[in-house]
Formats: sequence, structure tokens, C-alpha cells
Amino acid sequence: MEQTTVWINGERHTDRLVYDRALHYGDGLFETIRVHAGRPRFLARHLQRLRAGCERLRFPSLDWPGLNAQILAVSATAADSVLKVIVSRGEGNRGYRPQTGRPPTLILLLSAMPGWPSQLVESGVRAMVCKTRLCSQPQLAGIKHLNRLEQVLASAEWDDDRIQEGLMLDASERLIEGTRSNVFLVLGSKLVTPTLTACGVAGIMRSVVLDLARDIGLGTEIRPVRSAELHRASEVLLCNSVVGIWPVSTVDGYASYSVGAVTRALTSALGTCSDAEEGRWYSS
Amino acid sequence: MEQTTVWINGERHTDRLVYDRALHYGDGLFETIRVHAGRPRFLARHLQRLRAGCERLRFPSLDWPGLNAQILAVSATAADSVLKVIVSRGEGNRGYRPQTGRPPTLILLLSAMPGWPSQLVESGVRAMVCKTRLCSQPQLAGIKHLNRLEQVLASAEWDDDRIQEGLMLDASERLIEGTRSNVFLVLGSKLVTPTLTACGVAGIMRSVVLDLARDIGLGTEIRPVRSAELHRASEVLLCNSVVGIWPVSTVDGYASYSVGAVTRALTSALGTCSDAEEGRWYSS
Repeated sequence: MEQTTVWINGERHTDRLVYDRALHYGDGLFETIRVHAGRPRFLARHLQRLRAGCERLRFPSLDWPGLNAQILAVSATAADSVLKVIVSRGEGNRGYRPQTGRPPTLILLLSAMPGWPSQLVESGVRAMVCKTRLCSQPQLAGIKHLNRLEQVLASAEWDDDRIQEGLMLDASERLIEGTRSNVFLVLGSKLVTPTLTACGVAGIMRSVVLDLARDIGLGTEIRPVRSAELHRASEVLLCNSVVGIWPVSTVDGYASYSVGAVTRALTSALGTCSDAEEGRWYSS
Repeated sequence: MEQTTVWINGERHTDRLVYDRALHYGDGLFETIRVHAGRPRFLARHLQRLRAGCERLRFPSLDWPGLNAQILAVSATAADSVLKVIVSRGEGNRGYRPQTGRPPTLILLLSAMPGWPSQLVESGVRAMVCKTRLCSQPQLAGIKHLNRLEQVLASAEWDDDRIQEGLMLDASERLIEGTRSNVFLVLGSKLVTPTLTACGVAGIMRSVVLDLARDIGLGTEIRPVRSAELHRASEVLLCNSVVGIWPVSTVDGYASYSVGAVTRALTSALGTCSDAEEGRWYSS
């Protein structure tokens, strides 16, 4: 784009980000990492998913040990924070086709940890089911890419601040995830979470919760979930890397739930679990 | 994002674009406008589609006469060029939900017109059918939004420079569009182009070609098109705002075509058509 002239909001502009394919096409990936006590939680899992995403989108190889080191350095002096890592395919010429030999762009944004009332964790959050449906695209399912208009549209569906999350279905009315979280249902004695092979993001906290459930002897099931199953769940919980686990008190139009034994056991296990093993992942 | 610290490729960074929702979520729209002899071609149609996209994504109102004037001013002194206009929802805090009261970001990129061999127009271009499928998302169909990973993946499917375009199907094997063009088939005496209610971009040149076809007395049909219909088309043509009309000589695995009477008539009509009426659109 060397021969391109640029204006942003009417002013001539020279910043390189204006040529970045993240901005033009959403051609990139991101991770949202909780930083606590100077350490990025579950970093190895985040980097593993990011690497899988880079492979899926056929990005050139990244300096993974370098990124790992940069994240540790940035986190070391940080207070309780959220670290967003964006990797894009980098600058491009006009046109969708990726050019070879361009280095990826790596963006780190470190923000203060958002606060929320503690009663959300104690008595549960209120959720609704969004009208915006997730489209089925197996080539992009599971990875945390930058094409997020469906989540934007779904998040704009409510302005009632008492609603903390919107659940999203696919075109066949299957429950997939929250706009910014994954969802689990307790059905009988099983902890069930939806399959994410056609759409949805395979969340890091989802993988942690699945591991914790196995650790404490809970049966787990990853399978297609019909939205109607929300009616007969005994507990519903949401999770993501920033909030950890949120019990759900109500899904509007479906059911109300109390914070049950499974949710309490998982929350307790998450509170005491160590991700010390994570540090080893990139040291080899 | 005022309390956020940012690094790009390891360097501390202060540019505002790093907070833009176009970069984080693809939360925006774009237009690619051909500038010829100091004037943006079909500007009124471009602005009309952009406005429809802004309404669909519920952007706050834009200064449309101001944008119209800026585009005319930028174009007036330009040589044969391509003007890309990006409108994003602007800066955001963390999170998908749009904040109210933030002004949109408006980016104009003016680049030299790309060149291609004249024989492409005379003897036709070679196309293939991509494996990447377009997912069905009626809420985003038709508008030219910034979530373009499907086009990126499809464009990466070939590296044979003799292939100029990839055709894209939906999950039900219906023909929808090219990665960067719309497609028309001549079937019997009719000019047929796919319905774009579930996916695809409703191209400006597509609307121009439909109007030209009616002007020269050609029957037109907008309907679902099965990919197998490529076998029995007598002519196939691609169009977009930059190249105008490209006859297709071959769709690999389907059929070869000669540049027929319909394509020639449309190309000729496009060459002589005036968009003088366009100037009036925003003067009222």
C-alpha cells in the first residue's frame, strides 16, 4: 500500500495500522488473558489455542518463545489486569489474498480488571437468549478470530443492565455459547457443554472447567445441545477467562436456577487450582 | 480504553486506531469506488449501500453530505484510482457491546488503479470454484461489512496466477458470488444472478449490470442458482466496481465459454453509460 494516500476522519494519516489486515478483513486472532498477582493465568492454554488459530488461518510462523516471554514480562509488573493479545496477518496490499513474506502484527493491550458486584458470583447472573444466530462455518469454528459481528449484534440486543449475558443459538436452535462466554448445563448427573465443531469459540476456561470436572469425578459430555434443554437443566453456568465461573440464576423465558452443588464444587476447584504446570510449557 | 497500555510488535504505542472496533471485531463497513477522470463512479449507489449497512449495524448517524463532499474533493485531483472508504463504529471499551455516543471512524484510502492484461477483457478470465463455503447469516447478507475471513480463506486456495477469480458456494452448493465480484449466468435468453438474502455482497456493479440489462431489453432473474447450472450456461460474467465486467472463459471442472453477445452488449452499455444522475443524489 506504499502508493496509497490515507485520511482518517478527514485528516491525512500515516500510521501503519491503517494497512493492517485485522482492520480491513478481521484477518487475525485474539486471546483475552487474566493477569493475577503478576502472572498470566493459563498462558500455555492460551498460546496453544492461538497457535492452532494461526495454523488454521495459515499465518506464517510466529516467534512463540518470544511472545511467551513478552507476555510474562508485561504481566510481571501488572496489577490485577486483563491482557488482550491480537495477532493479525499483518500489512497487506489491496485484496483478500494473503501475500507471502509479510510478518504478522502482534498487539498487546493491558487493561485494568473490570469489577462486578460479588453477589453475581454468589447468587448467579441473569441471561437471555439472543435472536442473533451463529452461522455454521466449520473452517472458523473453535478459534478466536477477529470476525465478531455476530457477537456485536447479539450484545446490542439488550440494554437492561440486570442482564449480564446473552446466550447464542445456531440456525437449528442448538445452544452454542454466550456472547463472551461458554455455557455448561447440569443434566442429571452430567456436566454438559455444546459441541463447537460448526460455530462457537472453544474457550480456555471451558477447557479448564472440563478438566476440573474430571478431577473432581464429575461425568462430562460434549455434544449438541438443544436450547429446550435449558428447561430441564438443574444448574447452568457460564465461564470465561476474565470472570472465571458465573452461576446462572435465570435464563429469561426458560427457567430459574439456584446455585447448585456442581457449580459450587467447580468454583471451589477453580479457586484452588494451580496453573503451575503452565510455566513449563514453553520452557522446553 | 483510557487506562490501557499498548504494545505493537514490542514497541509502546499510542495510535488511536488500536482502539478501533474495526480492528477488534471487524465492526464496520467498506466501499471500493472506482475513480475515473477525477470523479468517483456510481458514488450515489455506493453511499446508498453504505448507509443501508450503517442502519443494519445500527451505527449512529453519519454526516452523509460531508462524506459525499470529501469523496468528491479527494477524487477531483486523483488520477485513475481506487478509493476505499471504511466506516467503523469507532473506538470502544473492552467488550462487544457498542457504547452509545461514540463517533464512527471514517477512513479513506486512495490507491493507484491496478492494471491487468487487456486480453482478460477480450477473451475472458479463468475462474475456479473454491472449497471454502459461505455461511448463511441473513443479518449480514448483502452489506459490505469488515468480517471477511471467508473471502481471505477462499482467496488463499489458489496460487496459479492464470486463475483470476474464485467462485463461492454456500453450504447447500448454491452459487453465490466470486471472492471479490458478483456473478451472472446467461441461461436461455435470461441473465441470471444469485439471490443474496442469506449470504454474499450486493455489489454496486451488480446493480448497474441489472439496470443496463433492463435498458437493453434483456430479461433478468434474481434467484437461487445451483452450482451445476454453470454446466448449462451459455455465458458467464463477473463484475465489480474496479474491473467493471469480466467475461469468464473457463470455470475449472465445469465448462468453457466464449465471450458471447450478452456479455459484449453489457460491456458496451457500461462503457457508454453515464452516471450523471448520481451527482444529483446528494444535492437535494
